[in-house]
Amino acid sequence: MTTGTDNGTVNLDEPGRLMAKEIAEQPDVLARILADARPDIARVAAAVKAADPRFVIFAARGTSDHAALYAKYLFEILLGWPAGLASPSTMTTYGARPDLRDVLFVGVSQSGGSPDLVGSLRTARECGALTLAVTNAPDSPLAEQAQLHIDVRAGAEKAVAATKSYTAELLALYLLVDALRGGDGSAAGGVVDAAAHIIADAEPIRAVAQRFLHVERLVVTGRGYSYPTAREAALKLMETSYIGAQAFSGADLLHGPMAMLEGGSAVIAIAPGGVSGSAIQPVLDRLVELGTNLAVVGGAGSGSSSGDGSSSGASGRVGGPARIPLPGGLPEELSPIAEIIPLQMLARELAVVRGHDPDSPRGLRKVTETW
Amino acid sequence: MTTGTDNGTVNLDEPGRLMAKEIAEQPDVLARILADARPDIARVAAAVKAADPRFVIFAARGTSDHAALYAKYLFEILLGWPAGLASPSTMTTYGARPDLRDVLFVGVSQSGGSPDLVGSLRTARECGALTLAVTNAPDSPLAEQAQLHIDVRAGAEKAVAATKSYTAELLALYLLVDALRGGDGSAAGGVVDAAAHIIADAEPIRAVAQRFLHVERLVVTGRGYSYPTAREAALKLMETSYIGAQAFSGADLLHGPMAMLEGGSAVIAIAPGGVSGSAIQPVLDRLVELGTNLAVVGGAGSGSSSGDGSSSGASGRVGGPARIPLPGGLPEELSPIAEIIPLQMLARELAVVRGHDPDSPRGLRKVTETW
Repeated sequence: MTTGTDNGTVNLDEPGRLMAKEIAEQPDVLARILADARPDIARVAAAVKAADPRFVIFAARGTSDHAALYAKYLFEILLGWPAGLASPSTMTTYGARPDLRDVLFVGVSQSGGSPDLVGSLRTARECGALTLAVTNAPDSPLAEQAQLHIDVRAGAEKAVAATKSYTAELLALYLLVDALRGGDGSAAGGVVDAAAHIIADAEPIRAVAQRFLHVERLVVTGRGYSYPTAREAALKLMETSYIGAQAFSGADLLHGPMAMLEGGSAVIAIAPGGVSGSAIQPVLDRLVELGTNLAVVGGAGSGSSSGDGSSSGASGRVGGPARIPLPGGLPEELSPIAEIIPLQMLARELAVVRGHDPDSPRGLRKVTETW
Repeated sequence: MTTGTDNGTVNLDEPGRLMAKEIAEQPDVLARILADARPDIARVAAAVKAADPRFVIFAARGTSDHAALYAKYLFEILLGWPAGLASPSTMTTYGARPDLRDVLFVGVSQSGGSPDLVGSLRTARECGALTLAVTNAPDSPLAEQAQLHIDVRAGAEKAVAATKSYTAELLALYLLVDALRGGDGSAAGGVVDAAAHIIADAEPIRAVAQRFLHVERLVVTGRGYSYPTAREAALKLMETSYIGAQAFSGADLLHGPMAMLEGGSAVIAIAPGGVSGSAIQPVLDRLVELGTNLAVVGGAGSGSSSGDGSSSGASGRVGGPARIPLPGGLPEELSPIAEIIPLQMLARELAVVRGHDPDSPRGLRKVTETW
């Protein structure tokens, strides 16, 4: 069994090498989007503004659905445009023909190939929506079907578990919203260094992986902008480590699922600075009080830093929470682009130390065809 | 340890007696709504029609969020009105002030007391929405804050795990949509007998509970109208049995989480007749092929009936899927009102046979205050 790779010295014979390589590419991908994608995004923003939509509906699956959820927060909070996530099956399976005049309908997909997304976008266009595809595949059916397209320029993604295409989708969607509010995208300049900073220090990740080495169930929680991060982290852990990872917004966790947790239960909390960090604080307090086996991503929250690699039994109490630091200085709405990266690294590391190859998750293919 | 109660002969000294009593009340509750609530709902429908909204946004938490998700399908499929679920934190925590003219904003809550829902509904009204509260508490802050109110008439609900208020919310929301399309609600007449029929036969439930007696993780899946059922069933299992239950739409399951599943993994699939039953078929085929420890609610799907109570080890293969039958004859859009009931019974039964009291889940209170 191998115990992980240092970044920059990726061993191409190791399990998880593809995923490690694509995680490590993220600073370059983010820099490329900032350098090259802004004119395209500005053109899309101008076309959207000209159409003057009143509502935004996203259609996506899997990882891209979490990017769509992030964008929902951006549109609602930064622009005041009500936004929702489509249930693609209403249009493709049940044949719904909603009235979508004044709607911007955004399909988000790495591959742009899933038939149900292509079908929903086609129907949305027929029903009067302005359609936009956000993909990593400009020649894909989804991109061709849409009136507008943003290429997220992540480069070919070969690992089954999406990593760089996720942060690329987040940044592209942020830049679109920023352009719609008249920004020039310069506020996002800090994401490249933040990503590089995180990738350069695998030590806290290894310590947390040791903590969760024998865990079969795990809860990930975050609020507001960090809730999509919790969802995406849970999906990465399920896909690569086969852990039964469940994501809850901090508020929803208190509405029922908290009953599952007891001393020693494995929990990851996303607690960046800003409003979502403050909003998660009461949840962190409960988790510490319960004696959960807690890892906190970010600087907020109670308890002392102790990424000491001590693991715990299924029901034993552990010391303080482990801490995975995040670099400071990013505006809260950009934090999700950074905060998912240590969790991608953790998913890969955990899979490897548990004896799996995260590049070949059982039962999955890169493009999932659902209808 | 007790081994559960027969319906109609509830032993008030047993663990889970409150939950059993409220599960058993559901036929009466549904009959009461059909007898008494339709004039109120018709008045609300007339007011909504007069306002002529173009979009519907729901705000809810926990169990009521699953009722809202069901209603989202109803509005989109039966009325063609685009609908979305609000993230309450955007308005209450981040202070978003979206433009909600032409929006029907629906707060769904058993207690009508959660401060973040009351706050989002207030903000929605200030931002131009027509507001509707659907609660089991006509004197609650949420009901008082809203311009329109539907009382779901479930009667006092004392068990922490909501059961009768959920099916009451589903039926009330169905009747609203039916009134909006000009119906008189008579299509829903069959739900009372369907509920009574399910409650009268606890045998298949006991058999499935034996199958899942030692399970720590479980996946629940359904598509379309049955996806809210999967979500709600997972929440009941988490709240009462502390099982790490995860719900996925059949399509999303194939986009990643399927990797977690192997021979012997515990899975519940909701497969009623109709479109959602057909749409779940490819997922059922995969689950059977994998040799999962599968229970199917409803008549659709492959494999033979075998509610034989045989349990399986964590990784051993089991025989065929167990089957929890559903009475036939309900239109697909009403099936969720019936199909959740055996899963409520299962959650209660499992909690009891695992030695817990589902009426007193650890760490939960009936009204959760989140902000």
